[in-house]
Amino acid sequence: MNAAQIVKPKESLKIQHLETPKPKGSQVLIKVNSAGVCHSDIHLWEGGYEGPHGLFLNTTDRGVKYPLTPGHEIAGTIDTLGEQAEGFSKNDKVLVYPWIGEGLCPACRIGEENLCDKPRSLGVYVDGGYSEYVLVPSYKYLVKIGEDIDIDAAATLSCSALTAYGAVKNANLKPDDTVVIVGAGGLGLMAMQLAKAVTGARIIAMDIGDDKLKAAKEDGGADDVVNSKKEDPVKAIMELTDKLGTDAVIDFVNASKTVEADMQFLRRRARLVLVGLFGGELKLGLVSMPTRAYRLIGSYTGTLSDMIELVSLAKRGIIKPLVSNRFKLDQATEALTMLKEGKILGRGVINP
Amino acid sequence: MNAAQIVKPKESLKIQHLETPKPKGSQVLIKVNSAGVCHSDIHLWEGGYEGPHGLFLNTTDRGVKYPLTPGHEIAGTIDTLGEQAEGFSKNDKVLVYPWIGEGLCPACRIGEENLCDKPRSLGVYVDGGYSEYVLVPSYKYLVKIGEDIDIDAAATLSCSALTAYGAVKNANLKPDDTVVIVGAGGLGLMAMQLAKAVTGARIIAMDIGDDKLKAAKEDGGADDVVNSKKEDPVKAIMELTDKLGTDAVIDFVNASKTVEADMQFLRRRARLVLVGLFGGELKLGLVSMPTRAYRLIGSYTGTLSDMIELVSLAKRGIIKPLVSNRFKLDQATEALTMLKEGKILGRGVINP
Amino acid sequence: MNAAQIVKPKESLKIQHLETPKPKGSQVLIKVNSAGVCHSDIHLWEGGYEGPHGLFLNTTDRGVKYPLTPGHEIAGTIDTLGEQAEGFSKNDKVLVYPWIGEGLCPACRIGEENLCDKPRSLGVYVDGGYSEYVLVPSYKYLVKIGEDIDIDAAATLSCSALTAYGAVKNANLKPDDTVVIVGAGGLGLMAMQLAKAVTGARIIAMDIGDDKLKAAKEDGGADDVVNSKKEDPVKAIMELTDKLGTDAVIDFVNASKTVEADMQFLRRRARLVLVGLFGGELKLGLVSMPTRAYRLIGSYTGTLSDMIELVSLAKRGIIKPLVSNRFKLDQATEALTMLKEGKILGRGVINP
Amino acid sequence: MNAAQIVKPKESLKIQHLETPKPKGSQVLIKVNSAGVCHSDIHLWEGGYEGPHGLFLNTTDRGVKYPLTPGHEIAGTIDTLGEQAEGFSKNDKVLVYPWIGEGLCPACRIGEENLCDKPRSLGVYVDGGYSEYVLVPSYKYLVKIGEDIDIDAAATLSCSALTAYGAVKNANLKPDDTVVIVGAGGLGLMAMQLAKAVTGARIIAMDIGDDKLKAAKEDGGADDVVNSKKEDPVKAIMELTDKLGTDAVIDFVNASKTVEADMQFLRRRARLVLVGLFGGELKLGLVSMPTRAYRLIGSYTGTLSDMIELVSLAKRGIIKPLVSNRFKLDQATEALTMLKEGKILGRGVINP
Repeated sequence: MNAAQIVKPKESLKIQHLETPKPKGSQVLIKVNSAGVCHSDIHLWEGGYEGPHGLFLNTTDRGVKYPLTPGHEIAGTIDTLGEQAEGFSKNDKVLVYPWIGEGLCPACRIGEENLCDKPRSLGVYVDGGYSEYVLVPSYKYLVKIGEDIDIDAAATLSCSALTAYGAVKNANLKPDDTVVIVGAGGLGLMAMQLAKAVTGARIIAMDIGDDKLKAAKEDGGADDVVNSKKEDPVKAIMELTDKLGTDAVIDFVNASKTVEADMQFLRRRARLVLVGLFGGELKLGLVSMPTRAYRLIGSYTGTLSDMIELVSLAKRGIIKPLVSNRFKLDQATEALTMLKEGKILGRGVINP
Repeated sequence: MNAAQIVKPKESLKIQHLETPKPKGSQVLIKVNSAGVCHSDIHLWEGGYEGPHGLFLNTTDRGVKYPLTPGHEIAGTIDTLGEQAEGFSKNDKVLVYPWIGEGLCPACRIGEENLCDKPRSLGVYVDGGYSEYVLVPSYKYLVKIGEDIDIDAAATLSCSALTAYGAVKNANLKPDDTVVIVGAGGLGLMAMQLAKAVTGARIIAMDIGDDKLKAAKEDGGADDVVNSKKEDPVKAIMELTDKLGTDAVIDFVNASKTVEADMQFLRRRARLVLVGLFGGELKLGLVSMPTRAYRLIGSYTGTLSDMIELVSLAKRGIIKPLVSNRFKLDQATEALTMLKEGKILGRGVINP
Repeated sequence: MNAAQIVKPKESLKIQHLETPKPKGSQVLIKVNSAGVCHSDIHLWEGGYEGPHGLFLNTTDRGVKYPLTPGHEIAGTIDTLGEQAEGFSKNDKVLVYPWIGEGLCPACRIGEENLCDKPRSLGVYVDGGYSEYVLVPSYKYLVKIGEDIDIDAAATLSCSALTAYGAVKNANLKPDDTVVIVGAGGLGLMAMQLAKAVTGARIIAMDIGDDKLKAAKEDGGADDVVNSKKEDPVKAIMELTDKLGTDAVIDFVNASKTVEADMQFLRRRARLVLVGLFGGELKLGLVSMPTRAYRLIGSYTGTLSDMIELVSLAKRGIIKPLVSNRFKLDQATEALTMLKEGKILGRGVINP
Repeated sequence: MNAAQIVKPKESLKIQHLETPKPKGSQVLIKVNSAGVCHSDIHLWEGGYEGPHGLFLNTTDRGVKYPLTPGHEIAGTIDTLGEQAEGFSKNDKVLVYPWIGEGLCPACRIGEENLCDKPRSLGVYVDGGYSEYVLVPSYKYLVKIGEDIDIDAAATLSCSALTAYGAVKNANLKPDDTVVIVGAGGLGLMAMQLAKAVTGARIIAMDIGDDKLKAAKEDGGADDVVNSKKEDPVKAIMELTDKLGTDAVIDFVNASKTVEADMQFLRRRARLVLVGLFGGELKLGLVSMPTRAYRLIGSYTGTLSDMIELVSLAKRGIIKPLVSNRFKLDQATEALTMLKEGKILGRGVINP
């Protein structure tokens, strides 16, 4: 089979001809139809990201090994089932849950494998979906999607939408809450759609691009928008909330600058959900944590159960994932480059 | 009636002869038998505390007005009921819930008045218990304690034990969790007793005093102890947890130094509960929040419902609040001075 | 002031000229603009209802005293504030929370006064809203509604919509759950709107009237409907759920016949939320409770916090309470009679 | 290998010489050291149990197939690992989680396999632990127990203690709650120990045997006891609860007679947790469900995560499972007979 691999960080991905795996035990071999191209793939490609104190954090120090086939947003067709795999048939259309854990830690025991102590995520620690075929360790990580959802849209449910959904759940919103969603890109828009669909909360979108804020209103259902480049975000939010501050923030950027602003428009008891991987530091005043009863919550992807809920919402048209660019396998480097340069507006996918 | 008031910050408290209030509506007048002396009373006395960036935060900027009768840990006897007060009789022994809210914010609506947007706490924003009598705004803030609990021990349930309990609840502990409790003073010891009584978790006490760590084992029921002055706290915790890190930390100090250490021995998914008012800053690496799925939780006192649970536990001897020093009303300045100088080991109370 | 009172059960209500109350302490006097007419008012009027074993349960045995001014769905205008009442001004438009408790039981302590051990609900145990004025025991039971909501629609939020909302919350729905809503009358329709707004679950409406099922689809947003008179409800639900059964049922009828059917189309782990007061008995097979892990949940109105969430949803047009009939105070008997005879399709209100 | 099998319901178990399974994929072969003898094994042996309306429910109608090796409480030693099994080594002492699900239903997705739509429990639907060896479908169902716990005591954690723990969790107890535990046998005693260890609630034990009630006080830590044969249980509980009724009941008998009594001493808002498989019917008055806000909760075993918590509690001596009788494999029929005749006081185990 052909796969687009990162052989060495920062070099162009190479199309490698690899032996097609044979599924054993509970394993399943999937013919990849669509593999989403995600910002975190860029970190893998660059070999790391900026950490606190200006340090560069190497992916290899976190257990990543090259050559690696990236791609954790995978939708496809069942090709071969291991002898202990069940519940599925050849040619079933499926979405793959990539946030696989070792299976023995407390998180795995309650179905939160995305938070495993020793993760084995597809496309990160194990070869993923930039490939004609991908080997999934168990049929339990597959979800049938049927013919109602576009296969490219389906692929984005396993990371882009899932991360948005996990964050919305962590914000713990009620109908009389106000939530500020920082960053109105693909994840932010999906978070707005999801907050709209399952919480009833009032949504304020914040971004530095007017086009994105327009989409936030039209596609995301935001009640209000704030351009934090053109107006003081703290002043704007305090005005929109009768000077009370906001009940929750979901920050899809998570950079020093955005989080510093977030901290200044939190209502007492507010939840600040940190999602983005932009990086940097926050100087956190410690006394305000107890006196203001704030909660800072790190949110990382979502559970398999969450992903099943997303499939259900997408099938009924309640959420609408936006796929804007499609690439061939040999265009993987181009896809990553375009994403890095901000030229992909919705989600890009590779169709191997 | 006589009351020990802070007339001006930093000056000795003065015994003032004030008019005894007459309860109207739902109000109740309580004859104070015991009023706990709390660290936060020192902040009121000093007129503020150290905030982030080296700033001194004035109590008057937060709405405190002088002269003020401090004292928020109040146990006493019912003297007079307003005409709409009910459910109690003259001479009933009661504990007073001091964390009173305005009544109209979302927190108040669900019985979390301690987290009110506009708090009216007794002994902070309204005259409190360093007095012969205190006026409570409604009979709803009173809890009968009967004759089974020592009245001085009862007083400490409304702040010292309540803050410990709120923190233990926020840590969300399960029986196979390990929790590190930083600071083995009065609150820390009570948190250990409470974690022991209602969670089943394994407890590691951390402090810089061997005598306190001895008490942690004997009175708090700690499973393990770490002297963070004598050994590297990070190394010690990693060794005690099979290099996994701890599932939760409750930090009753909450200073830059302790929290910086805390952040280094957290297991993925860990809850870091910040309680103390020592102050300072933390340089928080933002990327680790989502990737490690940490939760930083500010914890402030507890609810009226929590306080009722504490009364129930204390009545049955399941928790044992420790009162070590008793003062007369005219010794209020001495009591605060001794507390500030670290000369009170359990809890000091004033018996007006 | 004039009030329409039940002087004696089963007799026509009488317009009585009563002294207008003067608010003391935290009390507030409200000029009633709109008072909803509720099925449970009929029970008060008839002096009781059918209980288990064919017994008639007298309201007087439950603490109701006649003469009584009924009316617990009250929206109006602030007339006079007691000297300790605050946060409101004369002429503010407000919705009244009627499910008032004694204030000292565990439910009251956490803001669930609707479940108080010794309830003092307005219009049930204390004079209510079929009157020109009503005395509310504290400003804390008032919620500002502003000018955005029709005052008659607002009134219905405090019982009709609140009961629906409490039930939806008790059903604990997720986006991939299926919920069957039994009874597509006013409460059922509102429950559908609410489930749609805040859960993402799939909704199946069940009723015996095709017109109601039509409204369920059009106004309630039901995904599927079942006419349980025309088809076997058990067979129908099993077909609609791939023979798995439903994850949850909310039964607004709660009669022997409906609940017997409900029990037969529950999926393992299902929640059966019982709301209606129709009455009768269920012969419950005890072994199936543990083996099937069922939950039978009695649901009674909702909390003040829930009501505030409803006001927020109604203000933004996310839910749309339906008021179909308006009456004058001297038409109270007529209103109750029409309701009893099934001649009121949405909600009837009295405008005193 | 030798196994004690039920070849045909109601006949003596036979020692069969079966081929020792060879583990494939994630499977693991366990050398059984201890297999608990459970009341539900008697149902398997008798081919069914009494259901509602006097019906006999056949195990074969629920999917059980004979010949069957019973035994779902299994502790042993790792013999052979399948090629995909990991995290364990030969000779590790392990406890087996027997409540295995298909892996694809909503319950399985969140780690609640015990509530799976299509269960595959060991010793019920698949051959279990009355055998020299047992084949476990995945290493994920194994928990290391080390050398600190007696292997026979460990075995009882996977059903007897687990069922007690699941029930205690479902009762959702707080420190000021009163819980009545009906049935002070093995499960009841363990539930008392667990409620004591992790809730702080007040415990009332109810049984018809004075010896059992004595054990409830001494080994279970019950605060009060009621002999429901000698005194009216309803009157007794009302007296012990200031006429309020109890906040929760856990009924380990779950027969018509006990549940009818339970229903009469419930406080408003009470949780009635039904666990036992004695059977029969309850005539449930439907109106009292909403007006009293009761919750009837069926509770079935517990999760793998719960079992891990039990292992942690047992290792630290916080709970003490009681093993009273030990049998050889060829005494399986004798063990079941003694259990049926009430001659086993703690838990009986088979040591193959």
